[in-house]
Order: sequence, then C-alpha cells, then structure tokens
Amino acid sequence: MGELRNRLGSAALKAVTLRGGFLAGKSALVRDRVLPYQWKALNDEIPGAEPSHAIENFRIAAGVSTGKFGGMVFQDSDVAKWLEAVAYVLSANPDPELEKHADAVIELVEKAQQSDGYLNTYFTLVEPDKKWTNLAECHELYCAGHMIEAAVAYYESTGKDRLLRVVSRLADLVDSKFGPEPGKLKGYPGHQEIELALFKLYRATGTRKYLDLARYFLDERGKSPNYFDIEYEKRGGSSYWPLFRSFGSSYAQAHMPVREQTAAIGHAVRAMYMYCAMADVAAETGDEALADACRALWKNTTRKQMYLTGGIGSSEHGQAFSFDYDLPNDTTYNETCASIGLVFWAHRMLHLELRGEYADIMERALYNGVLSGMSQTGGEFFYVNPLEVWPEACDSRHDKRHVKTSRQKWFGCACCPPNIARLFASIGAYIYSTALDRAVVHLYSNSSLSMDVGGKAVTISQETNYPWSGLVRIAVGCEAAAKFSLGLRVPGWCRKYSIKLNGQRLETRASEGYVLIDRAWGPRDELEIDFDMPVERVYPNPQIREDAGKVAFQRGPLVYCMEEIDNGKNLSSIIVGKDAGLAADFVPALLGGVTVLAGEARRASMEGWQDRLYGSEDPKREAASVRLVPYFAWNNRGVGEMSVWFREG
Amino acid sequence: MGELRNRLGSAALKAVTLRGGFLAGKSALVRDRVLPYQWKALNDEIPGAEPSHAIENFRIAAGVSTGKFGGMVFQDSDVAKWLEAVAYVLSANPDPELEKHADAVIELVEKAQQSDGYLNTYFTLVEPDKKWTNLAECHELYCAGHMIEAAVAYYESTGKDRLLRVVSRLADLVDSKFGPEPGKLKGYPGHQEIELALFKLYRATGTRKYLDLARYFLDERGKSPNYFDIEYEKRGGSSYWPLFRSFGSSYAQAHMPVREQTAAIGHAVRAMYMYCAMADVAAETGDEALADACRALWKNTTRKQMYLTGGIGSSEHGQAFSFDYDLPNDTTYNETCASIGLVFWAHRMLHLELRGEYADIMERALYNGVLSGMSQTGGEFFYVNPLEVWPEACDSRHDKRHVKTSRQKWFGCACCPPNIARLFASIGAYIYSTALDRAVVHLYSNSSLSMDVGGKAVTISQETNYPWSGLVRIAVGCEAAAKFSLGLRVPGWCRKYSIKLNGQRLETRASEGYVLIDRAWGPRDELEIDFDMPVERVYPNPQIREDAGKVAFQRGPLVYCMEEIDNGKNLSSIIVGKDAGLAADFVPALLGGVTVLAGEARRASMEGWQDRLYGSEDPKREAASVRLVPYFAWNNRGVGEMSVWFREG
Repeated sequence: MGELRNRLGSAALKAVTLRGGFLAGKSALVRDRVLPYQWKALNDEIPGAEPSHAIENFRIAAGVSTGKFGGMVFQDSDVAKWLEAVAYVLSANPDPELEKHADAVIELVEKAQQSDGYLNTYFTLVEPDKKWTNLAECHELYCAGHMIEAAVAYYESTGKDRLLRVVSRLADLVDSKFGPEPGKLKGYPGHQEIELALFKLYRATGTRKYLDLARYFLDERGKSPNYFDIEYEKRGGSSYWPLFRSFGSSYAQAHMPVREQTAAIGHAVRAMYMYCAMADVAAETGDEALADACRALWKNTTRKQMYLTGGIGSSEHGQAFSFDYDLPNDTTYNETCASIGLVFWAHRMLHLELRGEYADIMERALYNGVLSGMSQTGGEFFYVNPLEVWPEACDSRHDKRHVKTSRQKWFGCACCPPNIARLFASIGAYIYSTALDRAVVHLYSNSSLSMDVGGKAVTISQETNYPWSGLVRIAVGCEAAAKFSLGLRVPGWCRKYSIKLNGQRLETRASEGYVLIDRAWGPRDELEIDFDMPVERVYPNPQIREDAGKVAFQRGPLVYCMEEIDNGKNLSSIIVGKDAGLAADFVPALLGGVTVLAGEARRASMEGWQDRLYGSEDPKREAASVRLVPYFAWNNRGVGEMSVWFREG
Repeated sequence: MGELRNRLGSAALKAVTLRGGFLAGKSALVRDRVLPYQWKALNDEIPGAEPSHAIENFRIAAGVSTGKFGGMVFQDSDVAKWLEAVAYVLSANPDPELEKHADAVIELVEKAQQSDGYLNTYFTLVEPDKKWTNLAECHELYCAGHMIEAAVAYYESTGKDRLLRVVSRLADLVDSKFGPEPGKLKGYPGHQEIELALFKLYRATGTRKYLDLARYFLDERGKSPNYFDIEYEKRGGSSYWPLFRSFGSSYAQAHMPVREQTAAIGHAVRAMYMYCAMADVAAETGDEALADACRALWKNTTRKQMYLTGGIGSSEHGQAFSFDYDLPNDTTYNETCASIGLVFWAHRMLHLELRGEYADIMERALYNGVLSGMSQTGGEFFYVNPLEVWPEACDSRHDKRHVKTSRQKWFGCACCPPNIARLFASIGAYIYSTALDRAVVHLYSNSSLSMDVGGKAVTISQETNYPWSGLVRIAVGCEAAAKFSLGLRVPGWCRKYSIKLNGQRLETRASEGYVLIDRAWGPRDELEIDFDMPVERVYPNPQIREDAGKVAFQRGPLVYCMEEIDNGKNLSSIIVGKDAGLAADFVPALLGGVTVLAGEARRASMEGWQDRLYGSEDPKREAASVRLVPYFAWNNRGVGEMSVWFREG
C-alpha cells in the first residue's frame, strides 16, 4: 500500500492555486462566461436557442414538474458535466450562490433516482421497461459515468457527499447487473466513460468492486460474439440509432479485446475515454499487458494519426479515426472533445510512467486543438477544428459542411463546451503531479502548489509568461528543510535550456523529458529556468499526403496559422522561402495579447491568369508580407481563410 | 435558306469512314464489346448482375409479357441509348443480326406506345394517372428525349422510319401538353435532354414546331414562380425523389432564366445537355442573346471550373459544379457523362462559331476525362474520374466512397457506359464538319470523309498515328477539280507546326485555331502536317488551391499520370525537378500500345521518419525514376495510387 500510495498522481486540485497568466485566464473565462451561460442553457433560458431540457428532464423525473423528456438520449450528461465543472471552480473559488445552484441540482438528481438506485431520465421517463437493453446506442452507462465523475469532483471539492451517495447506489446497481457472475449481463457501454468514472469512484471511496467493475467492462469488450449483436437480437432487431450498427463494432472499439488493440480506430472520443480507463487500471493494478496495449495505442495515435495541433479523428463520418497518415487539413473532424480526451489520456499515461512524450502531447493538444474550440471571449465554440479553411468551400461543398466557418454559441449535441469547461476548471491538476516525496511540474503557468512532505508544508510557486516566453521562475518554500525530488519537464519542442538554482547554474540532464532535482530544499530556494523559444519550422512525415512539400511554424508549444484578415485571400498561393526568417513579436492589443510571427514571403501572382485555368509557365511570384497568429486564436476576427501548412520554396 | 444550309455542321456519319488508328479502335471496342454486353444487360442476362429490367419493362408495357416495372424511373433511356449507339454502328458496319435485334426492340417500343402517343413504361405501368405531374423528379421528358435521339439516329443510319414515326407522335403529344398557349402546362424537364433531341427531330423532319418547343422549354426554364414548386404544390407536396428539392432549383439550372445564366451550376450532365440545346437553337435561329449566354457559360465552365482532363462537376453531392476554382483532385465527381456532355456541347459551339478553343476542349475531354471512363478492354467503366487516388482512403473515408478504385462492370444507374457507347459509335461526326463549300478537320485520326462539292465527289483522307505522333498526312481526292475551303485545326496545345502541300511548305497563319486553305483542289493533292508534340509542363492557376505548387505533364492532347504500379506507393512524395526532362517513348506492349514519359525525379525519403509524424528537418530526398502513362489508360493494371499533379522543385 505504501508503494501504491507513493505512485505519482495528479496534484489535488485544492492544492493548486492559479495566479494570473495564460492558463489561469482560460480557467477564469470558463468560470465567468462558460458556466453561467451553460447554466442558462441547461435551464432553457437562452433566447432563440433550442431548449436543452436537461434540467427539466430531471425535474420531471423527480416528480416536481410534468411534461415529456426532451433532448438527446444522453442529455443527462450535460447536467453532470456542468456539475463537475462547478465542483472544480468551487474548489478554488468559494461561491455560495453557485454552490446553492449546484446543491439544488444535486437534490433534484437525488429525487430523480429510483429506489433501486437507477438514474437516467430518458429511460425513467420514456422507456422504463427498456433499461439495460440497448447499451450500444442509448448512452445509459455513459450518463452514469458522467454523474459519477461529477459526484467525485463535488465531494472532493466541497466535502459534501450527497451526490457521491447517489452515484454509489447507482454504481452498486450497475455492479449488480453486469459482471462475470451467472445471471448478470455480459455487456459494456456503447460509449465508454463509466470505466474511468468507476475508477475515480474507487479512488474516492476505496471500494474495490468499482475498480473490478471498470476492469470487467474493459476486459469484456470486444469478445466474440459481440455483445452489441447479442442485445440487438434480444431486442428483436430494433434500433434507437441505426447508424451505430452501420458503423460497425470498431466504431465503439468493440471489434476485438482491448488488450489486443494496437491501432486507434472508431469514434475518437470513445477511444480516448477507453484508453484513459485502460491507463488508470494498468497503473493501479500493475497490469503490464494492459499497459502495453496503452503504449501501442499511444504510439499509433500520436505517431500515425494525430495532427500537428493535437487534433485527432480525421473523418467526419463517425467522428472517427480513419487510418495511418490520413490527415486531410480541410475535411477533418478533429472534435474538440477528442483533443480534450487526448489530454485526459496523456495525463493518465504520465501516471503510468513519467515520460516527457506524454506531457508534450498533453501540452500540444491543450494549447492548440483544445483551445481552438473556444473563442477568445469564451462565448462561442468549435466542435470541428480544421487546419485549413476556405470559407466558400465550407459553404458550398457538402463534404465540408461539418467545417463551420465561425464558432457557434451552443450545439444541439452540446458535448464540447462543457468538456472544455471541466478541463480548464480543473487545469491546476494537470500542471503538477505529486507523490509522497516527489513533485513534478508538467506545465508552466503562474500557479503554486502546496504539498506536505513528511509532515512539513512545502510550497512550489511558478512565475512565468509562458507560453509567450520560455522564462520560468520557481520558488520552493519549505516550512522546514525538506528532502524531496522536484521534477521539471523539459518540453520536447525545446532544444536548449538552462536552469539556475539560487543563481548558480545547475548542470543537469533531462531523463525521459524531465530534469529531476533531488535534494534537501531549504526554507526558500529559487529556480530560474530558461527554455529557448525560437520560431521553429515543422516538416511533415512524407506519408502525410496532404502536407507534402509544406512547412508549418511553431513557437514553444504553440502552432501558428495564417488568417485571411492578416494575409489576404488564397493562402495557398503563399510561398515561404526556405531561409525566410519570421520574427516573433508580442502584440498586447491583438486577440487579448498574443505573440505573432511576421516576415517576408512570396505569393503566386494572378498576373496573366485571370482568364485561364492552366498554362505553360509557372505563375510569377510577388513579394508578400505575412503574419501568423497562434492557431488557438484563429477565427476571433470574423470569417475568413485559415491555414497551418504552407508551401516552402 | 441557302445561308442556313451553308452553315457549318457535323459531317453526316455515313460520310465518314474510320480506318484503324486510335479513335477507330475505341469505336470498334464499343461495337464489339460494349454494345453486345449492354444488350445482355438490358435483357437481364448478365449472371450475378442486378437485372436491368429495361427491355422487360417495354415487353410488359407492350402487352407481350406480364409483371411489374423494374429499375429506375428513367430505365427506358438505357434502351434508347443502346438503340442510338446501334444506329451509329450500323451506319458504318452493316450487321443484319444486330439490326434484327434493333428492329425487334423498335417494334416493342411501338407496341408500348399508347394510342395518344404517350411513351414511358414507368408511368404506363406504375402511375398511369400521374403523367406530366412530376417533371422535376421523374425523367418523363428526359426519356422521351433519348428515344427521339435514337429514332433520328436510326432513321439517318438505316433509312427506316418506324421509330421516327413513334417519336414524332410522342413529340406531338408533348407539344400538345406544353407551350405558351392557354390550357397547356408551362413546364420543362427536371433533367434536360428533350430540348436537344427536339432540335435533332426538327433537323431530321424539317418540322418547325419541334424547334419551337425546344426553345419554349429553354425559355420557360427558371421563370418565377418556379414550375417545380408549382407542380409540387399541385401534387400536394408529395415527392418521388425528395433529394431533388433538397438540392434547390439550381441543381437543374432552373434558378434563373437560361439567358441570364453566366456560371455553370448544379448537376453537370443536366447543365451540359441544356447548354447543347442552347447552342443548337442559337446557331439555328441566329439568336445572339442565347449565343451570348452560351459564350458566358462556356467561359465559366472551361476557364473556372474544369479539370485539366476535361472533367467537370467537382462535387459528389448532386454530381454537380461547385464554384470557381474549387477543383479537388481526390474527392471530385467528374462524371464520365459530364465530360461526354462537354464534348457534345463543344461540338455544337463549333457550329455556332468556328473557334479552336471549342475543339481544344472537345479534344481534351474526349482523350482524357471521357476515355478514362472505359477500360482498355471496353468491359468496365468509371462513373467518377478523379485526378488523384489513394485506394486506402477511398476504401476508408466516407467522403471518398464515390471514388471507386477500379472500374465496374455495370451500374444500377447505368448512364455512363451507353453514353460512352453512343459517343464513340458516332465519333466520325466529331472529326469533320462540312458546309456547302467547306470542310473542316477538328480531330486527327485515320479516317476519310466523302462530300459533294457543287456536284463533284470529294474525298478527304487522313493517315496519322495521332495522338502518339503529330504527323498527319491528308490526301484530298476530287472527281474533278473543285474549289472549296479546307480547314485544318491547329491544336491549342501545339506551339510549332508546319504544313506542306504537295511537298511545298505552305506559309499559313491560323485564325481562331484553324488554318483555312481555300483553293481549287486537283484530282489528288497531298498535305503533310507536322504538329510539334513535345512533352509539356502544365501549371495551374494560382487560385486552384489543390494544385498549388504542382505541375502536370501533357503531350499532344493527352494528360499524363503516374500510377503506383510504375512508381511505387505514395506518389505525393515524388518531386519532379524544374529542369528534369521526361522522354516520350512508345511502348507497343503496354496498355495496348501507349507513349510513356520517363525520366529521373526525386522522392522524399522515409529515412528517420518511420516513428514520427512531424520533425524539424525537411525529409531527405532520394533519386527516383518515374514513368507516366496517359491518364485515360490508368487503372488497367490493378488497383493502385494514381496522380496527375506533382510537386515541382
């Protein structure tokens, strides 16, 4: 138990304080803009928007209102995700008003729970006789999973266990229905989620059966004959959502046992949530076979199927992975939730084994593919995150109809906004990991971590302008001298760095992406880390057909893009010279303050080409000044073209 | 009348003899392979294939069989297109057996005609009370048009007028139902076709009202309120094919009056057939406003929305044009029938005004985008003609599912194979145009044209290895010395050429793409034309985003491509040096004898890239020998990658 307890894990959210800076700013946006808006949305109070009906469903199921169920079959999960995000916010920012709302919702949820522990407003209100008959298509266990996550978060944040008791009863019911024992259903969810939630519940309550049930759901998955076929036959061939069957069992990663899976396939969010649970269980139980499956899936996902932005799921059809190196920039899906799932997974992989690679991808997805999902003001969201947009084509071409040319206020299927909310509301937990005698810094952002080392209070405080600057100051304060190891991540994008301890240069070597400083820390020690952060060119693997001959630009963790508003129309005509230097410049008044890259390039000229499509001479080139902005900040200045990859030559 | 009669028109098919060579070979394929296969298909005699039911529908409607209508609502048109192609074949190749089959089919068609002249097996058998109530979606006038075309062809070829009388009764019925007079319907077809057919019927019979009806259908189209809405309301909002309405009125070019249309839009085949009729009517009536609309639409189609191969219709959704410069290579539709329609239209534009531009596009579409639709053996067909294929992506990606990785034997909607058949069976008519005292050669291919100039028999015979060689010998033989003008097209792709007349170099200048030799021709004169035919690089307009930075190769009228079988996997990794020379070499044993282009290029190397997607160095380049084959010949050696455009650098 000692050994287990000394495994590296996320810092408790309560132990982390954000103090201004980039990530804190996004977290504040979520608190101040996203959650209040979402609260209105859940209560059907957004004028002109389709009503969510999510809270009303609970009110009806609780018997305090009448009417019919409304919204998606998984509408309950919106309430759960809101509650989870609220819990994280309350952890750092006491807010009696908000807590009152949350407590009222929890009371409603409790009232909506049936006497046997069952909790799902769709089945309660619409098909009470059909419980547990369509795991594939009806998100019953998915909704349960989100409510469990909310309950654990609320309990850890407020100490209140009312919702935790609700979801424990629900989990007990699920445990009584599913499992290897005779008479139990041998099923598993059509949308993975409950597995990672049960793991959280196990960690929060110490109840082992929740871990066992999570592992059962993982191990049962993909056995032959396929459970989704079995229950389909049992239902007499009826479907709630026929598309599910048309996608095939790989859509929900149920095409083979999870331990045998080596390639990311199917619906990207389902995949990420499942891989999260696999990593959790592998780390907790020391299950090396499961850990190996995680590593194989990680390699395939991040080395064969991931966009430069940390976007994943290149196919709109099924919001899914397609196959190795198939990474079209303009027709991709790259769901915001999938990149969020990648952050979740990477975070768990770090706790399976501390390797910089995991943190690099976590940071890449966070700063690019996730953040692009939310507008600068926090009021609008992208579901789809392309790397190239030609608005006319999105408007005209059916095969690009999913690529929206501006962020939307809300969605009928509103999974992305609350998912962004719960991630940024809990971002502190992603910055640090801790063990009994270790602290590790994964992300650099103004914040401080409080921990206890052998009974002594230790504070680790960062001060930095990251991601705009690579300079990070870390102050370690100890109640009394304390011996522990401090891990500092050296980002994969960084080729040169220096670390000073109390003004003295520290000669260190990073191992697996981390510099570990193991010493007795005094009452106050100061570290100064300087990560060199030049503008970098990035080249694509030659197998990525859509990027062949092109180059992208990155600085620190940020991927850059050009927008029409800065560079005119037809970004594909821009050619960046192989030796053209782009200068980085922080512009406080732009997009809330961003570092832009600017320099001289060329552009294929339309001179002589107005009236023909093809010709025997290469178009002339004319000088062009170009300006790039961080990818995450695109589309905050109106509709226009955007591109990440450029011709080099 | 004399002036009209002296307008340039297609040579009569009977006046042209093909004598071996490239086009004759394709024509023979159609005769020997396509039509017999199609005959079996129409009679449901292809084992394993979905039955066509097309002949059986006529048998049932004729009362000689019983059963239910089968196939598409426009299934009749397959029979008509087969009859039309058979007529063309019989014109040059008497074949009593084939003619017997055709006569039997015609007898059946006659029997299926109702007493008032109505002819359409779907409505006769399935919805006899719904005639003329759903022009938009049910192809009633479209099928009539194809049968009229067949009848005119059969009459001109065999002299037999049985089918001509059938379709004249049908046209008379249509004329009694539609028109500006009170009590008549103010409609027009949902799929244009009858307009150009009525024009042919007018030319064959001299009956003016058919021309007037054709013009009526053109001029009525796109008036407001839209007729398709009117008949939809009349039907009480029922639809046979709801997708039609979802596409909007521009799908069938009914969004505005045709004379006001300046941009190609909507379903590409519908557009082409309509533009054909517009050109016919404009040329025949001297209607300059209509001619101007044709010219504007021509410019937009060929200078903004056409692939290098003469493919048109870049959107799978609606098999339609999208918008200017939107020309993706790997997701395009480029229906074979649309390129055939472009050949039809270009041919008619040549008779509106003799400009090489029209013949250039006619030749480009014919030798590339049309011919690619048929396999080397004539047994398999492409509906969709992409310029870039990655088979794994076509198999995996839903947005490329329409791009087949190999030609198919037949289609449920079998419009392309019979359309190829009728085009190549009548290809002689596209080679020459004539007027009273003029002959014009548009296409170069072994053939001879017989004509009568002021009562004297004249023969113009070509001998050439075109398109493999630019050397063409033309012998002009006259019964007695005859004064007439002989026009020789100088292809747009040719920058240098020489013409010798009886061994003497002729100093000439082409005007509008044609050299006109106006002289008294002796009993035998010999012309030798040498079109310089080097390998040419073709560059795309900078607005074509998908081709930016790329180059294509052309030699003579042929566009070239690389295939995986010659060049290995991942064609996108190939980089052709700016100065790399590609040598042309005729390989008799390859693909039935083709000229290949071969040379040295480079290829981005996978060295060091097996395990990562992105890196900070441009991939190394390694030497690569490349071989290109004519685009039309691709996919005759198994499934594999193909590409027309290559990185240059």
